[in-house]
Amino acid sequence: MKPATAIKAAKPSVALDHSQLFDVSVTGPLTKKRCINLDNGASTQPTTAVMTAVGNFMKYYSSAHRGNGFKSQITTWAFEEARVGLLRFVQAREDQHLCIFTKNTTESVNLLAARFPFVKERNVILISSMEHHSSDLPWRKTGHTIVYIAINKDGTLDMDDLQNKVSMYGNSLALVCVSGASNVTGILNPIYKVARIAHSVGAQVYIDCAQLVSRRAIDVKDLDDPEHLDYIAFAGHKMYAPFGSAVLIGRKDAFSGGTPFLDGGGAVNIVTLVNVTYKEGAEKEEAGSPNTVGAYAMFIASKQLQQITFSAIENHERALMEYALPKLQKIPGLKLAGGYPVDLGTRGGVISFTIDNIHFNLVAAILGTDLISLRENFIRKDINNKIGYIRLSFGLGNTFTDVDLVVDALKKIVHGEYKFKYIQDEHGEFSAAGVNCDFSAFVSLDVEPLKHPTRMTLKTVFLEWKEKGKKWMKIHPKLR
Amino acid sequence: MKPATAIKAAKPSVALDHSQLFDVSVTGPLTKKRCINLDNGASTQPTTAVMTAVGNFMKYYSSAHRGNGFKSQITTWAFEEARVGLLRFVQAREDQHLCIFTKNTTESVNLLAARFPFVKERNVILISSMEHHSSDLPWRKTGHTIVYIAINKDGTLDMDDLQNKVSMYGNSLALVCVSGASNVTGILNPIYKVARIAHSVGAQVYIDCAQLVSRRAIDVKDLDDPEHLDYIAFAGHKMYAPFGSAVLIGRKDAFSGGTPFLDGGGAVNIVTLVNVTYKEGAEKEEAGSPNTVGAYAMFIASKQLQQITFSAIENHERALMEYALPKLQKIPGLKLAGGYPVDLGTRGGVISFTIDNIHFNLVAAILGTDLISLRENFIRKDINNKIGYIRLSFGLGNTFTDVDLVVDALKKIVHGEYKFKYIQDEHGEFSAAGVNCDFSAFVSLDVEPLKHPTRMTLKTVFLEWKEKGKKWMKIHPKLR
Repeated sequence: MKPATAIKAAKPSVALDHSQLFDVSVTGPLTKKRCINLDNGASTQPTTAVMTAVGNFMKYYSSAHRGNGFKSQITTWAFEEARVGLLRFVQAREDQHLCIFTKNTTESVNLLAARFPFVKERNVILISSMEHHSSDLPWRKTGHTIVYIAINKDGTLDMDDLQNKVSMYGNSLALVCVSGASNVTGILNPIYKVARIAHSVGAQVYIDCAQLVSRRAIDVKDLDDPEHLDYIAFAGHKMYAPFGSAVLIGRKDAFSGGTPFLDGGGAVNIVTLVNVTYKEGAEKEEAGSPNTVGAYAMFIASKQLQQITFSAIENHERALMEYALPKLQKIPGLKLAGGYPVDLGTRGGVISFTIDNIHFNLVAAILGTDLISLRENFIRKDINNKIGYIRLSFGLGNTFTDVDLVVDALKKIVHGEYKFKYIQDEHGEFSAAGVNCDFSAFVSLDVEPLKHPTRMTLKTVFLEWKEKGKKWMKIHPKLR
Repeated sequence: MKPATAIKAAKPSVALDHSQLFDVSVTGPLTKKRCINLDNGASTQPTTAVMTAVGNFMKYYSSAHRGNGFKSQITTWAFEEARVGLLRFVQAREDQHLCIFTKNTTESVNLLAARFPFVKERNVILISSMEHHSSDLPWRKTGHTIVYIAINKDGTLDMDDLQNKVSMYGNSLALVCVSGASNVTGILNPIYKVARIAHSVGAQVYIDCAQLVSRRAIDVKDLDDPEHLDYIAFAGHKMYAPFGSAVLIGRKDAFSGGTPFLDGGGAVNIVTLVNVTYKEGAEKEEAGSPNTVGAYAMFIASKQLQQITFSAIENHERALMEYALPKLQKIPGLKLAGGYPVDLGTRGGVISFTIDNIHFNLVAAILGTDLISLRENFIRKDINNKIGYIRLSFGLGNTFTDVDLVVDALKKIVHGEYKFKYIQDEHGEFSAAGVNCDFSAFVSLDVEPLKHPTRMTLKTVFLEWKEKGKKWMKIHPKLR
């Protein structure tokens, strides 16, 4: 293993102007200052461009695949353009890969686990020990043998262990599952090397790209390439388009034949009382009405990421990491997951840490409620739920000021300088005693009454008139 | 069976002012007139109130269930309020029913089929012959015996057949599946009577409320009531909140124990390398990041439906039906599905019909492209794909003028008075020869470039400064 290099900017550092990318108008009720999101690894705010595009799209919204009308055609067209656009976004060829829309990455993995072309002689699945539950649990259900790939002390994937296990299982190996970027440490796995190793024994790879997609360009490559990615998944809510859509992009041949994961309208061609003939391709795997706005939002976000360029995004992340890491490292008792210094060439914009003698849940609660007053932060536990980290995951909306705020807040926590008293509940969560917020002042749970009366009686609105001996209504001009 | 009564307004007719409910700014490119949606049975446009609420919600959007920050708390709160609100919307008690968020009604049925508490001795499922594929196919997968309930010639459910089959199967009967409103004829099934009959032998009921939810108030009733509904499902896209969310509302006891349909993060409490402990309740069935905006949009739509009142909605539908049916009936060769006259007391705002000697796909294509120029319309096929209907399904946005337009257009079609030549493709679909539309003029597939450069070099943005012998960046004021 190569030793971690010292922190050093390999390229000129750049940063993005968040205020033209996002709506930054929301302020915290205690601080009266702009709310910041340091939890982009969980969910990202929609960009202004995505919100504008969605707002316009919804004027044209109608049923996809089912109508001949203008709005129905335009909705269908936008949905299918989104599919093609997202394939191109990851360099996939339409004749080799399918883009299947799902509701989240978890559904993508469940769908893949249900549809994976298992063959009898290959009954082993290798999963990295840094995968989150959604990339692990669905495979346990398949009844195949799950073997875990070790990770090194610095949090990187143990490539020797991977190579050994791939060699050992050889023709018994069906699939290798590795995430593109760890959601705890932000470590970028060498996914193309992983693919090459897996393919060397005829196994396939699934790469969870949920954390990677907004940080680095993805190339699934041609299926003839030994470094190709057979299946990947990612979700809109981690790429600035949180409208309930995600994708599974996978090799086409895996989905031909068989029955889909979800059964129902849209997936079928002909249904009789005894027989079902399924469609082929992505539609077969997308039973029911599709989330067209979610798909469109993901596509627009992908276009924006490309427009900003991944090199600018990488530089932005690197600038924040370079700025934050030494400051965090100096905080007494703070221990960075994966150690320090950090090889930034192999890291996305994620920093996880613990603080000695202070419960991670307490740190999170104080940061969120009190010190940087109701701003975002995050907890991640290891696979055995033993270690809890405080995680800062940067996104396009973060600034150096955000880093300053969290560093200052952490220093105060270490010195016990926070305002409220925190009480732990039976689930281990902390909350500030006596701090209550009326959320409905910000997000309404009710609807504004309509300006005009919605109930209009026959007498006031319709003037009766005769038509062929029957009483019919004359339509009030307002209703025309 | 009661004979169908003559068409007569039982109550004073009312109608809603669509322009204050919806954005009606979109015009068809050929007609330059307002686009109308006569396909509300497939998908409904979001109301202005839903769009406004969603736009505001998205300013506060953050990860649900996972953060301590203000925005994360507010998102979690709104999501859980939506859950409780939707339970209340159908009169469900939180201690008896769960509200599980899914991506569409089809997923709701698939989830229920996977989680239904089947017992060995009850292996028969009764499904009405008017169910659409999504309420039928998932049950076929369970391996249980599927028996269909007949429908009468007028399209209503054959209640005698239901009663006979329930009596015949008795203790072998697990479940009766009936839709609240037919998606072909709009016939409102007597769901509470169906429930009473099913419960008389200890079976449960699933009522597909997708078509019903925006038309009539639903009451799942107390589980002690013999007319209670054990499981219902409906989706946002048919109730003016098309943001990729739907629900399965089902009796709580059915979901305790067992493994969820989707496996992954969010559904689990403790995961070790060999064991999984699941959460209980709705969260267990909602693995992965939830579609919070979709759930919130559905909730706001439910509040708006309640504010408009279901009696006003029913009157609005009835007024449109009373206005449309006699006009349609007079068109030569037009045959209404379910016959004429119609008992409007048992019908939602849906009209399906055929026209003699004209292919239903051709009628749909001409209506959509040419005559009422790129407006909505719809085709439905029967369960054997033999009969194709043209369907008009009314929603809150429809007016009497919409009816006039479609009636005039149908008259022209019957007389061959339409502009373009229509060509049938290999799937049986028709399209107007030579008519092409640049959809990207309406819904953009690209993103506006950012006003300020996003790539800012070290030289222009950062002024270098020294910090303990290392070169660090001074932050440009614009990035603070």
